[in-house]
Amino acid sequence: MALLGIDLGGTKVASAVFTENGSIIEKNITFLGNRKGADVGRLISEKICELLDSREHEGTEIKSVGISVPGISHSDSGTVWAPNIPGWEEYPLLAEVKAVCSKIPVNIDSDRACYIMGEVWQGNARGCRNAIFLAVGTGIGAGILIDGEVLRGSHDIAGAIGWMALNRPFRDEYLSCGCFEHYASGAGIAKTTRTYLNEDITYSGDLRKIPVEKITSHEVFSAFEQGDHLAATVIRQCVEFWGMAVANLVSLFNPEKIILGGGVFGPAISLIPAIKEEASRWAQPVSIRQVNIGASSLAGDAGIYGAGYLALKNWQE
Amino acid sequence: MALLGIDLGGTKVASAVFTENGSIIEKNITFLGNRKGADVGRLISEKICELLDSREHEGTEIKSVGISVPGISHSDSGTVWAPNIPGWEEYPLLAEVKAVCSKIPVNIDSDRACYIMGEVWQGNARGCRNAIFLAVGTGIGAGILIDGEVLRGSHDIAGAIGWMALNRPFRDEYLSCGCFEHYASGAGIAKTTRTYLNEDITYSGDLRKIPVEKITSHEVFSAFEQGDHLAATVIRQCVEFWGMAVANLVSLFNPEKIILGGGVFGPAISLIPAIKEEASRWAQPVSIRQVNIGASSLAGDAGIYGAGYLALKNWQE
Repeated sequence: MALLGIDLGGTKVASAVFTENGSIIEKNITFLGNRKGADVGRLISEKICELLDSREHEGTEIKSVGISVPGISHSDSGTVWAPNIPGWEEYPLLAEVKAVCSKIPVNIDSDRACYIMGEVWQGNARGCRNAIFLAVGTGIGAGILIDGEVLRGSHDIAGAIGWMALNRPFRDEYLSCGCFEHYASGAGIAKTTRTYLNEDITYSGDLRKIPVEKITSHEVFSAFEQGDHLAATVIRQCVEFWGMAVANLVSLFNPEKIILGGGVFGPAISLIPAIKEEASRWAQPVSIRQVNIGASSLAGDAGIYGAGYLALKNWQE
Repeated sequence: MALLGIDLGGTKVASAVFTENGSIIEKNITFLGNRKGADVGRLISEKICELLDSREHEGTEIKSVGISVPGISHSDSGTVWAPNIPGWEEYPLLAEVKAVCSKIPVNIDSDRACYIMGEVWQGNARGCRNAIFLAVGTGIGAGILIDGEVLRGSHDIAGAIGWMALNRPFRDEYLSCGCFEHYASGAGIAKTTRTYLNEDITYSGDLRKIPVEKITSHEVFSAFEQGDHLAATVIRQCVEFWGMAVANLVSLFNPEKIILGGGVFGPAISLIPAIKEEASRWAQPVSIRQVNIGASSLAGDAGIYGAGYLALKNWQE
């Protein structure tokens, strides 16, 4: 028997067929291109049909499907809200997929929930009952495991840590994405760097050579690694925010483990010792000694492993 | 049949005998006076024995005991850490109480866990599965209910929200109690007021008439209600911190309800609309519309109701 995990991102759909113990038999990536709305839904359904058929031919039947979506999965309605997929405000993904594979369980969850489930199944949170995946990419979210279950909240939108208030007073810049995300997401790193470049007219380092609208967190990390002082100022500020956020998770949740992942970790992995040091200053002092803070071991695959685990859990039930 | 709830505070022991549906049959308060260490444990055991005996005589036998402690209850060892009771670092309260009432269940929990359980049983969180009690007194803590269960964390110290990082950069003043508690607890209000009084030599209002070391949050609230501008500055800053903390709870937990309680709410109840307004600016915008924010309806009795509910739950199991 096999399990199918689908990881929908803002630019691509990754699919993987897993054995029950978490080995990947087959993995595919399809880019979304210009697809939006129902076309994205159709692409996912087609992928699923294709893999169900081909696996049946090969005699390893797929028994359950799990789907990770970049946004919110509403467990009551089966609809999905995904801000980076145009037309996915209340998209009826579950009904659509169910229509093409009615005989096996299909389950959908948010990417942040899948990240922590993936780490519990095959990554750095194996054996944990209380662990948190802090995902820092273009945006910021947290997958929070409590006593073996993912925290959902009253309406499935728990873990919106990008909105964490960390820097008073309130500024209008926080309105669209939240204070923590404004400073310390991938997009936030680029935004802060652009602001500093505009303010510091004496700066003539490498970042000045890039058209300001083309600067992303990648260029900032490259400059940082080359010893650029403007990049260092931006990154040092991020370390402070990441440390405060980690501290707040530690004080509130008293977890066994906090995993730093997403595209920014990535290049920011080397900063984890500095983030721990910052977190240690702020957090409940007993709790901070009980937590293990580290990088994801699944990196970009945490979501797809989580989707596979979602499939497994719902097949076992 | 009856249930016994014991609420140990820093200065007194309250005990109440409950019916199964949460009515109080009898309630007593004993002040600790100069008692410390084992004397406090002995007082609790004596109270329990006394009430078990007297109820037995009256024919309404007590079937279960719940105890709320002002600190941490370690569920594995049955020991208690309570910073305000001298000698209670790892105090073996469960073993001691079990020795005097071995025939019925005895359970101990932290005050913050009891506060939210009390509100769920007989207060403002009735019917809630996801709710938070933010307790602001001398210190600050949070009792967090997730899907009907109290959040404990990996080592029973979840909810240490007084340590929440809200005001960068880190200052040494945060070392002993945490950033949020430093500014916005009862003790923090007094501390901030003293600092402002020392800094603002032109101020000649009512607070100047009190010896600076005698100022508590009570005097600050009284002055605030009289229109004192220094008190207003202190309280306005607290509203900002309380609003940020509420926002962070909303974004992370997506709860149905947040209850503001503890000694400070109390006089700060009238500020709840302003706290909501501040929280609305920072929090995840969908989640903040889904939450109800209000005062405790049990006020100082939340802990004892929680202890009663703890007794009930463990008797039913």
